[in-house]
Amino acid sequence: MPLHAGEPTPQADAAPAPKGKAKPAGKKQKETKLGMRATKDGDFSEWYSQVVIESEMISHYDVSGCYILRPWAYAIWDEIKNWFDAEIKKLGVQNAYFPLFITEEALTTEKDHVEGFAAEVAWVTKSGSSDLDRPLAIRPTSETVMYPFYRDWIRSHRDLPLRLNQWTNVVRWEFKHPTPFIRSREFLWQEGHTAFATRGEADAEVHTILDLYAAIYQDLLAVPVVRGVKSSKEKFAGALYTTTVEAFIPHTGRGIQGGTSHCLGQNFSKMFNIEFETEDGTRAHAWQNSWGFTTRSIGVMIMTHGDDRGVVIPPRVCAVQVVLIPIPSTKLGEEARAAMAARAAEIEAALKTAGLRVRVDDRDNYTPGWKYNYWELRGVPLRLELGPKDMEAGVAMLARRDTGAKESVAWADVAARVPQLLDTIQSDMLAKAKATLDTCIEQVTTWEGFMAALERKHAVLAPWCDEESVEEDVKRRSAGKDGENKDAREATMGAKTLCIPLEQPELPEGTMCFASGKPAKNWALWGRSY
Amino acid sequence: MPLHAGEPTPQADAAPAPKGKAKPAGKKQKETKLGMRATKDGDFSEWYSQVVIESEMISHYDVSGCYILRPWAYAIWDEIKNWFDAEIKKLGVQNAYFPLFITEEALTTEKDHVEGFAAEVAWVTKSGSSDLDRPLAIRPTSETVMYPFYRDWIRSHRDLPLRLNQWTNVVRWEFKHPTPFIRSREFLWQEGHTAFATRGEADAEVHTILDLYAAIYQDLLAVPVVRGVKSSKEKFAGALYTTTVEAFIPHTGRGIQGGTSHCLGQNFSKMFNIEFETEDGTRAHAWQNSWGFTTRSIGVMIMTHGDDRGVVIPPRVCAVQVVLIPIPSTKLGEEARAAMAARAAEIEAALKTAGLRVRVDDRDNYTPGWKYNYWELRGVPLRLELGPKDMEAGVAMLARRDTGAKESVAWADVAARVPQLLDTIQSDMLAKAKATLDTCIEQVTTWEGFMAALERKHAVLAPWCDEESVEEDVKRRSAGKDGENKDAREATMGAKTLCIPLEQPELPEGTMCFASGKPAKNWALWGRSY
Repeated sequence: MPLHAGEPTPQADAAPAPKGKAKPAGKKQKETKLGMRATKDGDFSEWYSQVVIESEMISHYDVSGCYILRPWAYAIWDEIKNWFDAEIKKLGVQNAYFPLFITEEALTTEKDHVEGFAAEVAWVTKSGSSDLDRPLAIRPTSETVMYPFYRDWIRSHRDLPLRLNQWTNVVRWEFKHPTPFIRSREFLWQEGHTAFATRGEADAEVHTILDLYAAIYQDLLAVPVVRGVKSSKEKFAGALYTTTVEAFIPHTGRGIQGGTSHCLGQNFSKMFNIEFETEDGTRAHAWQNSWGFTTRSIGVMIMTHGDDRGVVIPPRVCAVQVVLIPIPSTKLGEEARAAMAARAAEIEAALKTAGLRVRVDDRDNYTPGWKYNYWELRGVPLRLELGPKDMEAGVAMLARRDTGAKESVAWADVAARVPQLLDTIQSDMLAKAKATLDTCIEQVTTWEGFMAALERKHAVLAPWCDEESVEEDVKRRSAGKDGENKDAREATMGAKTLCIPLEQPELPEGTMCFASGKPAKNWALWGRSY
Repeated sequence: MPLHAGEPTPQADAAPAPKGKAKPAGKKQKETKLGMRATKDGDFSEWYSQVVIESEMISHYDVSGCYILRPWAYAIWDEIKNWFDAEIKKLGVQNAYFPLFITEEALTTEKDHVEGFAAEVAWVTKSGSSDLDRPLAIRPTSETVMYPFYRDWIRSHRDLPLRLNQWTNVVRWEFKHPTPFIRSREFLWQEGHTAFATRGEADAEVHTILDLYAAIYQDLLAVPVVRGVKSSKEKFAGALYTTTVEAFIPHTGRGIQGGTSHCLGQNFSKMFNIEFETEDGTRAHAWQNSWGFTTRSIGVMIMTHGDDRGVVIPPRVCAVQVVLIPIPSTKLGEEARAAMAARAAEIEAALKTAGLRVRVDDRDNYTPGWKYNYWELRGVPLRLELGPKDMEAGVAMLARRDTGAKESVAWADVAARVPQLLDTIQSDMLAKAKATLDTCIEQVTTWEGFMAALERKHAVLAPWCDEESVEEDVKRRSAGKDGENKDAREATMGAKTLCIPLEQPELPEGTMCFASGKPAKNWALWGRSY
């Protein structure tokens, strides 16, 4: 019986060392280290490809850009989903389900929006062996599916606010390099779509949701993010403005958009005729928002915390928070073995009572060392070992996945110490990632400073005149060869604005844009990006 | 502010009676009864079309056979999902997510399976304005997506059992008459796919899951079902055998498949090469099951319990279990109004503390009568009224949606009485539906008896020789004109086996098949069906 469904016995080429069995004469004992071959610093791209597979989070599929989310990964999405769903319900948002398919007519209702998505839309043209009367698009996002209904459902100010959300799959047939979690042609997300009577309510919700997205990253995934507003070039096609949580991947020196909360203004309500009668009897167009958060976040978590031994998952979201490994040495008698198993069961029960997600790994065909590798590869935050010496001393040995630090804890203290330690691990992981992020953002005021910082694979906070043409120019000028940068793709990639951070440094009067020399309007965060 | 998101002010053609406002001279007061125009007994089909719309569960979409699941409906799916997901987790099943798309090659791996689904598969052939290299099917069900991975993941008996589930959307491009919830081209479901080392384990799980499906219908939705095995003609394409929960719709005299749990035997493991090394070192093919439950169940619930005033939803799954309606008559002074509002708030808080889902409807622009209609249309199980006389007497008036029965309860007893009453409503609803079902199943032994029962729009338990050709013959012979049956489609529809019930009446030796005259092998439940 496998430890849990979906965890296979390791493949034949990584056979575990049989324990306590007589070795055939002359046969070499194979004890192969599981999984990882590349290192994070040595070859990040290869490391990432391996770690998502070896940790059994992802399997590759015969359709390019589509991936299997195995239980070990899906459990993380479930934790995020449960938390976020409860939070938005508190705000009065309700879940619904709108169709997967969109007619061509509906899709083309809002001009900017369709221009932004048209090239990536997948079209169904046949069923069985016959052509459909008219082709159907698969949703890349559901504005054009939902808003005709918002028109029907919103007649009076009393119908507002209307706040719906759905947890779905969407399809965007991109041709950029696919990467598990980070960029795939089908992905899972939630999309919230809300309508208000006033601009003020819409603005307020945009930020409430953005704060929730920041909390998913920081509090659940232990990933630090910068909250900001997208430049007009980078905002959502058809939106008034877009707010974003931006993460950063130090190993590639690239920013990554973590989730977006858009104010659509009245752009869509004008296109879709979503009008209502106001309290004083006049007619007005609704103010709308839409906001989405995807499975990409799991990839950001992996890139942030993983190491050369595998993924490292924060306690808040890991399917198994503590793995308990009894170590019955072959010298132990039957009684001692039974006592160890009983103690392990007691500790397991106590930890479950404390509300923790515990697993006991008592598989008898693997060595302790093999099991340590196995669970480290999968990123379980805490390991609890129970060996013969621990049994004699009445203690258990706790080992942290993030730091490797070990501590011995008396049995009576385990149920109190473990939750405490998990909290510490959670906050330590965020603090470490935050410290790293801080070293990766440089504040500069000149073009030279900007390019030097990019060269160091950093993001750059620089004063900007907030003109789209200048942003395009920066992208062109910052692209180009860099002999020192190993990844050619990154070396030639230009930098764009990741966001205009909500938290702005002081902008002294007379500060000039680092790129155009015109008066600066704000500090923008720039970088290469995913 | 609407009562809850997605609940619009009623349309202009059903304007509420304004309360306490001066009526413009000469203008007629419009107080229109909300929604329902058809009656369940008078025109069931029309009644059903109206009730799903008027209760705000469904909206129609510009793609035929696709529907919007509005929050009022989606909340029921969420209740079902949460309950079933927790139950299967207890069994050790884990959730994952496999892709939406299937290559032609993968889809055609299991011959019978693809024959069963080929005509209904939707094909994506383009992205943007270009053709795809090869067309991609949208999953009608995920066996062919998942089983290549089961082959990779299952090598040894230690990898078994493998038990995965996913909550997804699927697409079946059918041409039969679409009906909200009951038959749609895209629907939501869960699909469980499990693999075992032995036939015995597979058989056991098939029945464990079937019992859970029966529990969803009986305990959550208050809908009685018959558990049984499908005939070989009716079983899942490619399965060894299929078990099912069958419901019955008395108004149309048609059985309806409620959920199916299949033993695939080794049919798929042989096609997909899912082999493993057994404990004694030999090789064997895995024994597999798959099981699915869909949003159709919500339609069955509506058809079973709804009445001429709207849907009637069982307390276990209704988004709002109790609606509290304060009735401040216009004669009340400010102080009395405030006292009433305060009492309503106290009762609401007490019921929430008792774990109930409560809503207070204190909208001041609708009459009490209008509100009663509103919530009855939506099927809220219990209404709690608080009028001036109730305030004087220190009581609240409870009104049941299912029976209309009313009772007066002292405030101090409300928090205890309401949960009790909801439990009673839940079991009464099931008991009533079960009593009706019992009158709709006739046990016969002859062809004449069979046809007479069908004529009465009943299902028929009849002894059968269990031969596929005989089943086909029964379908042909039982189709045909019936002058008395109003619905032409039903009059010409032949009867098929709904299932061979697990609970079998005694079959005396020498009993002959009602249709073929050959020796009967079992009692089969026959009927017209959806």
